[in-house]
Order: sequence, then structure tokens, then C-alpha cells
Amino acid sequence: MTQSPVLPGHMLCLDDYAQGAKSRVEAGVWAWLEGGSGDLSARKREAEALAAHAIVPRVLADAAGGSTRLRLLGHDLAHPVILAPVGYHALVHPQGELATAAGALDTVLTVSTMASRPVEDIAHVAEGPVWFQLYTQPSRGDTLALIRRAEAAGCGALMVTLDTPVQPAGLSAMRAGFAMPQGVRAVHLDGITAPAPVAGHWYNPVLNPLTAAAPTWDDARWLREVTDLPLIAKGVAHPDDARRLIDLGWDAVALSTHGGRALAAVAAPLRLLPAMRAALGPDVPILLDGAIRTGADVFCALALGANAVMIGRPQLHALAVGGSLGVAHMLKLLREELELTMVLAGCPTIASITPAALMPV
Amino acid sequence: MTQSPVLPGHMLCLDDYAQGAKSRVEAGVWAWLEGGSGDLSARKREAEALAAHAIVPRVLADAAGGSTRLRLLGHDLAHPVILAPVGYHALVHPQGELATAAGALDTVLTVSTMASRPVEDIAHVAEGPVWFQLYTQPSRGDTLALIRRAEAAGCGALMVTLDTPVQPAGLSAMRAGFAMPQGVRAVHLDGITAPAPVAGHWYNPVLNPLTAAAPTWDDARWLREVTDLPLIAKGVAHPDDARRLIDLGWDAVALSTHGGRALAAVAAPLRLLPAMRAALGPDVPILLDGAIRTGADVFCALALGANAVMIGRPQLHALAVGGSLGVAHMLKLLREELELTMVLAGCPTIASITPAALMPV
Amino acid sequence: MTQSPVLPGHMLCLDDYAQGAKSRVEAGVWAWLEGGSGDLSARKREAEALAAHAIVPRVLADAAGGSTRLRLLGHDLAHPVILAPVGYHALVHPQGELATAAGALDTVLTVSTMASRPVEDIAHVAEGPVWFQLYTQPSRGDTLALIRRAEAAGCGALMVTLDTPVQPAGLSAMRAGFAMPQGVRAVHLDGITAPAPVAGHWYNPVLNPLTAAAPTWDDARWLREVTDLPLIAKGVAHPDDARRLIDLGWDAVALSTHGGRALAAVAAPLRLLPAMRAALGPDVPILLDGAIRTGADVFCALALGANAVMIGRPQLHALAVGGSLGVAHMLKLLREELELTMVLAGCPTIASITPAALMPV
Amino acid sequence: MTQSPVLPGHMLCLDDYAQGAKSRVEAGVWAWLEGGSGDLSARKREAEALAAHAIVPRVLADAAGGSTRLRLLGHDLAHPVILAPVGYHALVHPQGELATAAGALDTVLTVSTMASRPVEDIAHVAEGPVWFQLYTQPSRGDTLALIRRAEAAGCGALMVTLDTPVQPAGLSAMRAGFAMPQGVRAVHLDGITAPAPVAGHWYNPVLNPLTAAAPTWDDARWLREVTDLPLIAKGVAHPDDARRLIDLGWDAVALSTHGGRALAAVAAPLRLLPAMRAALGPDVPILLDGAIRTGADVFCALALGANAVMIGRPQLHALAVGGSLGVAHMLKLLREELELTMVLAGCPTIASITPAALMPV
Repeated sequence: MTQSPVLPGHMLCLDDYAQGAKSRVEAGVWAWLEGGSGDLSARKREAEALAAHAIVPRVLADAAGGSTRLRLLGHDLAHPVILAPVGYHALVHPQGELATAAGALDTVLTVSTMASRPVEDIAHVAEGPVWFQLYTQPSRGDTLALIRRAEAAGCGALMVTLDTPVQPAGLSAMRAGFAMPQGVRAVHLDGITAPAPVAGHWYNPVLNPLTAAAPTWDDARWLREVTDLPLIAKGVAHPDDARRLIDLGWDAVALSTHGGRALAAVAAPLRLLPAMRAALGPDVPILLDGAIRTGADVFCALALGANAVMIGRPQLHALAVGGSLGVAHMLKLLREELELTMVLAGCPTIASITPAALMPV
Repeated sequence: MTQSPVLPGHMLCLDDYAQGAKSRVEAGVWAWLEGGSGDLSARKREAEALAAHAIVPRVLADAAGGSTRLRLLGHDLAHPVILAPVGYHALVHPQGELATAAGALDTVLTVSTMASRPVEDIAHVAEGPVWFQLYTQPSRGDTLALIRRAEAAGCGALMVTLDTPVQPAGLSAMRAGFAMPQGVRAVHLDGITAPAPVAGHWYNPVLNPLTAAAPTWDDARWLREVTDLPLIAKGVAHPDDARRLIDLGWDAVALSTHGGRALAAVAAPLRLLPAMRAALGPDVPILLDGAIRTGADVFCALALGANAVMIGRPQLHALAVGGSLGVAHMLKLLREELELTMVLAGCPTIASITPAALMPV
Repeated sequence: MTQSPVLPGHMLCLDDYAQGAKSRVEAGVWAWLEGGSGDLSARKREAEALAAHAIVPRVLADAAGGSTRLRLLGHDLAHPVILAPVGYHALVHPQGELATAAGALDTVLTVSTMASRPVEDIAHVAEGPVWFQLYTQPSRGDTLALIRRAEAAGCGALMVTLDTPVQPAGLSAMRAGFAMPQGVRAVHLDGITAPAPVAGHWYNPVLNPLTAAAPTWDDARWLREVTDLPLIAKGVAHPDDARRLIDLGWDAVALSTHGGRALAAVAAPLRLLPAMRAALGPDVPILLDGAIRTGADVFCALALGANAVMIGRPQLHALAVGGSLGVAHMLKLLREELELTMVLAGCPTIASITPAALMPV
Repeated sequence: MTQSPVLPGHMLCLDDYAQGAKSRVEAGVWAWLEGGSGDLSARKREAEALAAHAIVPRVLADAAGGSTRLRLLGHDLAHPVILAPVGYHALVHPQGELATAAGALDTVLTVSTMASRPVEDIAHVAEGPVWFQLYTQPSRGDTLALIRRAEAAGCGALMVTLDTPVQPAGLSAMRAGFAMPQGVRAVHLDGITAPAPVAGHWYNPVLNPLTAAAPTWDDARWLREVTDLPLIAKGVAHPDDARRLIDLGWDAVALSTHGGRALAAVAAPLRLLPAMRAALGPDVPILLDGAIRTGADVFCALALGANAVMIGRPQLHALAVGGSLGVAHMLKLLREELELTMVLAGCPTIASITPAALMPV
């Protein structure tokens, strides 16, 4: 892994960072990073769903006073692009999540349970808000300990991942013989005895301990009781599930395919978004995760009902290419593309981005 | 043909077995195995039909008590993946169908009329149920003799192939100059004088003896009279044909394109499945055959109305790569993928898999 | 150009003949033969229209008494595959249309105005019916002379091409520098002074003599008056045009894109076929021309309303590969594929092939 | 850059000119010319929208008196193909726009604000009408000076570009390191102090001076007051915006994606055209710009509601390949293709081209 001391000059869009990262990280790490469950069709479907929408330009609209600012779960944010939880940043940068946090200007950083650095240290260096992504553990005591650490570190919300009661194997990483390098581990799990989160290919998921330890509706109620932090349900897809969680007191939902690492033949979150917004009404925050790579993608997600989007792999792409500066620049690119799209679509504010701005391709 | 003494380690999905088999079997055998009628569009259409559906995940569902078990035509089965009838297993393994049977753990093995080993021997080594696939012969006496052999061997059902009153030529096998090797033959046809089942390219199908010997509705009635075994109609596509067979006392239908070896421009069985289920009501077992390669494919077929699926070519792929162990492992992979899909889709039992779990891509 | 003394053994479908011809004819001739107007999208659209339909198999139907025979414009034909008019057969075989006629067993041969051999000679060697394709000439006297020759030669119908009042240039032939070889010419035009039928790229089609000489509705009436032969309108696409011609006493229509040599962005005839059948009722013969390469294609066209199909380029492919024998074999392949499709679709007669046999892919 | 003294003989369609230009212009210029914003999907969408329509041929229509002539904004034009404004013709030809003007026979030349030659000189050599494309400047005085120059030069209309209040960066030109060569500049901007029209990748478009200087509805009213020239609104997409401009006294609209250089995920203008025509009624001229490369494309745009089309890049392709003669020939090719399409579609006049001539592919 080579770190550029200065930002390479030809990073003009997020795809440039992806290409740049591919040539910089080890093959096994790349296989892990880009992989997913099954035939990777989830990521393809996400991209196709975005590409199926076109934007209708508007002219002569006064952009004065325009802004990408929004209020979300108690935070005033400069723009609607949030850093999704991604594990093991140390795989692509010696400082891991600390480097990411230093570049996460003007946005929320969501620290993964599988982070390679402790949430306390990350929150210390982050300038913006920090959220904590929670995998519930087989023992409620362990889960509660993680929650208390996140609260103590000053995290602004808990994003609870619900879409992987069992985690499918990533075939490309297995083919590449990827193994976690010496010194890289999920530090939050120190001392927690848990089944391995990535299963081999001989286990029986319905009957093995992992499924037995998967969170249930009872756990959802318990989580709401044990913390006052806003609870974001990550990986919810069906409006009925989302509605039920909101009725239990949860605060927001994040549509996601877990980076294509959960259900292989999953429906694209963007396709589910309009029904989700209709089910939850205008006031429940909805985050959209999945294949967001341009400002037009962000715009499209917002038009279809999302309050904000999350980006996953581009964080590590940028981190691998340019360290903290890369992360900051990557975010800046995306944000500027969004601003440009808003101007050309005649939508000077986040609130003005509605389905009326879109038509089918 | 090389047989691996132990299972190669990189067999992570059914496509891996297909790739592995391609490099292990002779070119002529591969051309025969992968070939089909016409331009092979039937197989392409089957895969496209599966890819047109996406699964909507559910969260927090309690998977306790979940299982892939089902009851089908009098059998208690561990999972809904059945081995379709495929001829000439000896082309890829010295022990032929005996090797397959030894690996067919926890499932039904359907012995083809064109098997290279006798049904009696196969049934003897098989641990699970055995069915017999029947091609009706020009002489009812010959047909009856086959039925009596199947009954005596303990077969649990007769799967009668109806989709090839005349069998189209497989162009790729002809181009590859494929000829059945010395010592490989359809042993059940010993002593039966029949027109060659694969026609050359100068015959006239409408007028030649093959069509004259094709089964008719009168034969369907006769078959129901001469045996008490459950009768499964293989290759039925139209709801009216299926309804009529059930009314005649047949027990189940299997939608199939005959591996893309019958009608070249055939409709994908998956597209026909919902209308078939609607026509037959909830109680008639429907099997779905065609391009099933992943657990998500199985899930999709079940959601659209199938009770179980059948897999064909993957049997020979796995047999070529790893013998009996390969077959067992291939089934295990598919079964685990199905279980995982069920957990992530919130459908802990076979009965809970319904059309509501799907949406168009 | 090499002529095989015997039929090459690997000609298993019409695409094989196309591939075989490509390696046997000169590059310039191939460019002329395979070319068309504009970007060749017409041929692509024709093939896509066929591929958009799937056939629903039927089982247990009694094929006894089945046949591909039909009655068409006074002829009893063995099957519904007719040889479309194609010019200049001498480009791929020394005997030109005479060789084609000798191989046109059991079908109608349509002699082009642009044939390289006289209709009298072709009709003399043809075993089956011969029709004459007519391009109206600038002088009605010249046109009438062609009609009288066709009548005297015993032609059974006149197929009048209406889709090219002006003929677009074929770009691939121009790029290949194709020029008609010494000794190959449209012999029926000897003595007729006409504008060159293929225009260069500097002319002005709306104003030049070609358009002025294009046939009009007045010519359609005149043609009906001057001959008692059945009149087939080739290249009609709009139901209103077809209805009007039938009302004028014309006998049949042939949907065609002129082999993709007329309107570049033309609608696929197959897409127009259902509306055409609806407009003309059940009794007016409709021929379908365009991209028919398999028996399933023939079946599809018949199911959507055609009485018969025409094939163009495959004649020259087969002629180039195997001379008369090639033509006969190519027709046999197509006919057998059709018969096979009929058996598997449960449609033992031409009349039993209806839209109910199809569904969208 | 090499200039052919005579026209290369193999230029048979507009794609030939594109291919020819690619081999003649410098890589950096090509990257600039062919580039656009984002992933260039705008151009792909434009081409796909055209390809989604097919033309239904008509037969026996009398083409006598047919013509491509039309009346548009006070001009009698020989055909409906207009030269869109394109900047910096000097990049591909030493005489720049003067060479284009000399080849712009029988059509309107639209001079860009970013032209490399002054509008006065261009208008002097042009044989047909000249329009001026206006980018409003931050200072109304500067804008007015440009208008007065256009009026004085005899321009027949002002085409005001509204789709780029901020101009996105062209990534391919930036990657190619393209910089405007010595001696090539936008001469009309001499003495105008303006923000750089192409922004780098660190600016903030919503807040920076460019957006502040973008035209608003107040400017639209002011423009209508200060000139009597017909005003054409370029880049309008939404019917409401167009209707409002017409109500303010503007004269026409031009649907355009700015050559794919504005909104990256933009809707194809052809898709917007029917709604635009419905909103504006039959009398307001609508121009369609975008991916027009064949006569069938022109026909399709006219059928869906456009009065005329504009072509952009093909001007520079033809200029690079054949100078003035190339431009003239390229226009002749497109015009003849249109005439041919009209004849084969049975639409002998521009007015007779209606949606009835089209059907979906």
C-alpha cells in the first residue's frame, strides 16, 4: 500500500478514486473491499436503478440563498452525504478510521462495530458528528457495553444493522485467499466471545448459533429502552418493518443492501424508496445507501424521498489514494456535483428537490 | 477425464463446479452436456426470467424453528432441491449414476430412462428416495416393462417426459463430432427396438415413426391405469394440459424446457409458473426445472408457486469435479444459499415463501 | 468463389450457411449481399422482434395427419417458406438463378426484375411455381412488356415492389468498392432506359427523375387492369395502404423491409403484422419477409398472422456454399425445424398455428 | 491537424466524418470536442431516445411537389437542419467559423458567443441567415454590447443559452490536459471581465460569482425589452418554463442538453418534445438539438413536434475533414437522407411529418 503525500491531480470524480485505489491496495484487500455476496448482482441492480432516472432541467431559477444544508436527527449538516459504517479502515491506511475522521469535513462519520480503531479515539479527532453502527451481540450485556461506549464517546446516534442476522460469505475474498492482516482487527469486539461474523461454506445458517443470536423484535424494543440516543434502523427494506420500528420509538431508517454483502438477489433500495417514504410520511428521516457515486445520484435519491445518502466504499477508495486529504476531496467532489445538479435542475435547496424533478429514462 | 481424490477447495458456488467441469471433461462430452436445440436461447431465457425478480428483505423475524423441510408426494424431504433426470452419467464418471446416488444426500434422485446404470443398482446405493423418469416407448409392452422395473426397484414415483414427442438435434454436439463412447449406453433400452431418440438432420419429424410413437392423451390415461405410483408430468407448460392431466389422476407437474433440448424458442418455465399455480390450486405439487444455480433461484421459484425445484447439469458438473463428494457438496452449497436467503428474506419455512417476497427488478 | 461439389457436412442450420458463404464469396459481393441502408438497424430490429416472442409448448397432442401444407394464391404448397425475390444470383454461382431454381424443391421461386438470368429460362428449369417480382419502370410500356414476359413464362403471380420509390445507397457495398462484375447484369432491363436504381450520394431524391417515375395509386389501378395474374404488394406496411390495395383488386400483401435496403429506421414487419391481419381479415394472404432464419421464426410469423414467409439472403448463402443442393438442403432444414416446432407446440397443421401459441419473452 | 485539399471519397454518412475527424485532430482537441459533463450519459440517452422510435413506411404516395422547405422565424429555409452554436471552430480549422460559414449552404449558421472569429466577419461571408448565440454576461452593459453587435452584423435572431447558469467541467478534456492553443480565444469576450466559464474542481457553484451572475426571469424580461430580434430560448426543458418565456414575448425554444455539457443525468430532449409541443401549441417554433446524425433522426424529431433540428459536433467533424466543402457535403448528406426518409415514409412535405409516422421499436 502506497500513500501519496499529496493528492494526485487527476482525481476528478469518485470513479477516479476507485480506479486509483485498485492500483494501490493489495489484491486480497481489493477482493474483500469490492466483493459481496453471490454474483454481486446487488451492486449492479443499485446502479441500474439510479441510471433509470433522468433529471428535467429548469432555467432562470434564482439560486440566491441556495444551500445544501439540512437538519437531520438533531444535527445541522452542510450537505446530505454521510459516511456509512465500513469496517477495517486500517486495511487501506495505517491510521485507519483516524485518518478518515480527519478528512470527514462537514459531515457525519458512522463508526462501525468492526472498526479497526476505537470509537473513543475516532470521536476525539473527528470535527463533525460521529454516529456508532451497532451489531447486536449474542449477549445483551456485550451489546449494552458497546452502546455505553458509544454514548460516552459522544456519538450522536446509533445505527443498528438489521439486514444480516447471518452474514453471507464474500466469494471473491475467499477466492483471493484474503485473510485479515496481522494487527488489523475489530477492536470493539475485544473480549466479546461471538461466532465468527463471516461464515465458512459448510455451516448451516438456519440452525447454527448465529441465527439463534440474531436480533428480533424483542431486541428492538429492548434497544429503545436502554438508550436515549436516536436509533437508526439500517437495512430495513419493507415499509411494514419500518413502520413498526418507528412505532416502537425508533427514529430513522437507512435503506441499504449492506454494500451488496447481504441478500444477493436483493431489490435495489432506490426502488423501495418511494413506498418507504409513503409509508413513513414526511417527517421520519430516511437514509439511502447503495451505489451513490455522483451528485446526480444524490439528487435522485433525495428526489425519490431520502433525506440524505450514505457512501461506503468511496471512503476507502479515497483513503487509499490520498489519506485524509483524499477523503475530504472526495466529499468535496460529490458535494459540488450535487450543488451543480441542484442549480441546473432549478432546485436551490434540499427541500426543493422533489419527484417532479425526475422522469424515467 | 480426471477425478479429484479430494474436493477442490475453491468450489464456492455452482458456477465454480461448471467452470471446473469444463476443464475436466472431454470437449465432445462438454458440447453434448451444455448443448441444446437451436440457438440455445431457451437456457438464456430461463436465466433472464430468474434475474428479472428481486427479493425484498425483512428484518427482525424470528428464525427459530425455521427449516427447509417439506412433504412432497409422500416423502419427507430435507430441502426442496431435487435431482432431475439426466442421461449417461457415465460420460463424466466411471461409476456413473452410482456415484451420483452416493452423493445425493437428503434428496430425491430421478433416474433417467437414458441412465448408463440400471435403476435397480442405483436404487440399491441411494440413501434417499429414487424416482424413475419414463420415456414412453413405441410398444406399450416395452413401456410397461420399464414401469414394472421401476416399481420393483422401489422407485417412489414415475416422472413421465412429455415435452419431446420428437427430440431435436443438439447442434453443438453434432459440430463437436460427439459420439457415445464405447461402453456408455442407455442400459434400460437393452432389448427395446426403438427409433433413435436423437434424429439426424434429414428426417421428417411430422411423418416419421418417432412422431407416430409419441405419447397421446390415450397413453396418459393408460399410464394412470397400469401403475399406482405417483405420476409426475414433465415438460407440461400450458395450464390446460396440466389441469387435464390432474383430472385424469396424475399427481404432479414439472415445468421444464428439457434443459433447453426441446423447443428452441420456448417460454421460460418461471414465466409460466404463476398461471400454472393459479390453474392447479394450492394442493397439486409443481416442480420447476431450468437454470436454477443459486439459493436465490430456488427461493424465487418457490415464491412464484413451485413446491420444489430440479437441477440437471449441475449434477454432472459436480460429479465430474468431485465425484460423489462433489455432488453432496454441490447440494449443500445450494441448500445453504437457500437457507441464507430464507433468513434474510424473513421466511423461515418453505410455506412462508410467497409472491409477496418478490418484486420486479 | 469456390463451389463445393458435394454439400459440406456441417451445415446444420441457416446460420451455418451464412458463415459458410462469408468465407466463399468475394468481400465486395459479401458487402453488397449483407449490406443495407443506413446503419443496418432494420435487420437488427427484425431479429429483435422475432426474439421477443416465446412459444408455449403443448403436450400429448396427436400429430397424426399433421402437415405443413397450405393453399396460397391458387397453389398447393408443401410448406409456407417461399423464396423472396433477390437480384443477381450470378454473383455467387455461375448458373445464377438457374441453379437456385433447380434446388427450389417444393416451394415458390420469385424471380426478381434484377435477376441475372431471364425469367423464361428460370421458369423452364423450376419444378415448382414461379412468381415474378416487378419493379415498375418509368415507361408503362416497359412495365407492360415485363408483365407480358412473366405471363408468357408461366409465372403464377406478380409481386410488385412498392417500398423503394427511391432506392437508398448501400453504404457497406460502396465502402467495399463493389462494382457489378463483367457479365453480371439485370437481364430483364436490357433495352429499358431507366435511371440507375441505386443512387449515388449527390442526387436529390425528392426532385430527381427517380421519384418522378415512382409508382402511384394510379399505377396500382392500372396494374390491376392490365393483367389477370394475382398481384402481391411487396413492402406495404400500413394497414390503410394494404386495405386500399385489396379494395382495388390486389390479391395479397408482403410485409418486408426490402432486406433492410429501404427505409433505415423502419418498423419491424413482425410488429406490424397483427394490425395488418386485423385490417385485412382472415382471407387475404399476408407474406412476412425479414430475418427469418429458423423454423421457430416461421412459426412465430404464422402465429402472428402470416400465411407464409419469404427468405432472401439465405438463398444466396446456400447457393454459394452448395449450389442447387445447398438451396434444397437449406429449405429442408428450415422446413424440418418448422415441423419440429409445430409438433412441440401442439400445432400439427398450419391452420392450427395461432397467437395463442405465443407469449412475450 | 491536416486539411484535405479535396473531399475524401468515403464520407458516406455523418459517422464517417466523425471517424475521419478523430484521426485528424489532436487528442486534446478531440477530448474537448467529444467530452461532456459527468459520465457522458447525456449523449448516450439522446441516441437511445432516437433509436426507440421506428418509422412506418407508406407506399404509392405521390411525392410530386414534395420539398423540405420550411418557414422559420421569418426565414425561408431549404431544409430543417440548422447549425447549432459551437465555440472555437479555430481548434479544427485555421479559418475557424469563416470556413464553416462558407460551407453552410442553404441553412442558418448560429454564431457562438465563444466563437473564435467575430460575428461581423462570419456574417459577411455567410450566404444564408446568421443567428447569434448569447451567453448573458455578469454586466448587463456587456450583454447589451453583444446584442448590439449581433444586430449590427445582421443576425436574424438571438439564441439565448439558459441551461448553464454554471458550466460543469468536462472531465475528458481535463484528463487529456487540454488547454486552449495560442491564438484561439473567444473573441467576443475581449474586454469583458467575466468569471471563467469552465470551472475548476474546487469551486462552490451555489455560492460563487458564476451563479450570482446567472440569468434570471428578470433578465428574460429585460432581454425582451432591449431587442426586437426574435429570441430563442436554448436549453429549456420543462413546458412550464417554455410557456412562461413565450408569454413574456420570446419567440421560440430549443431543446438541448448543451451537447451533454450541462446536466449529466439530463432527460433526453426527444423524450421531452411531445409534452413541449402540447404545452406550446402548434405555432411556437421548437428546435431539437442532440445526437442528430441521420436523416431518420431529423424525421423522428420533426414527427414528435420539432420544427427543425440543430447539429453541433458534426460541423467540426466535417470542418476538420474537409473544410468548407466538408461542411457543405455533410449538410447535403443529412438533407438527402431526410428527403429519402420522407419519400419512403410517404411524407412529401415537412408539414406532413406527424407522430402517426412513428411507432415504438
